[in-house]
Amino acid sequence: MKYLITYDVSEDSRRNKLVKLLNEHGKRVQYSCFEIEIYPQNLELLIFDIKKIINSETDRVYIFPISKGVYQFIKKIGKRLENDDMVL
Amino acid sequence: MKYLITYDVSEDSRRNKLVKLLNEHGKRVQYSCFEIEIYPQNLELLIFDIKKIINSETDRVYIFPISKGVYQFIKKIGKRLENDDMVL
Repeated sequence: MKYLITYDVSEDSRRNKLVKLLNEHGKRVQYSCFEIEIYPQNLELLIFDIKKIINSETDRVYIFPISKGVYQFIKKIGKRLENDDMVL
Repeated sequence: MKYLITYDVSEDSRRNKLVKLLNEHGKRVQYSCFEIEIYPQNLELLIFDIKKIINSETDRVYIFPISKGVYQFIKKIGKRLENDDMVL
């Protein structure tokens, strides 16, 4: 399943760790936004790892499932990040 | 339909205009991320307004549909923004 992961992480070192982790699972499409493709059971492991990195008092990480049926309605306006080669 | 709007807008005045526009349509759930509920035909008008605000050479605004069937799988980890009272 495809997921969109968006985050607000105020502290650089935590954010860098989160980016490193998310890079192992998918593609950064905006500065605080990744698209990943992952099996639901592996998502639970990823969430476990995310919780170890962030400070849940100040930071937030949101995970939105993007079902296949709506891929065609995703709209990308403006300049894409280099690796965002996703053809819609 | 619910949509997630994420954005990277480098210049403050453009970003403030975009935030003002998006605030008219939904809720800011992260610093560069809004959840909105809008009819598809009105989404086209919103996209038209977004394109008038951003610089498509440097900025990017992505719009992801979130279908009702996956609401229950949305995960919000960490501290929510004050107005993000969405009960999942």
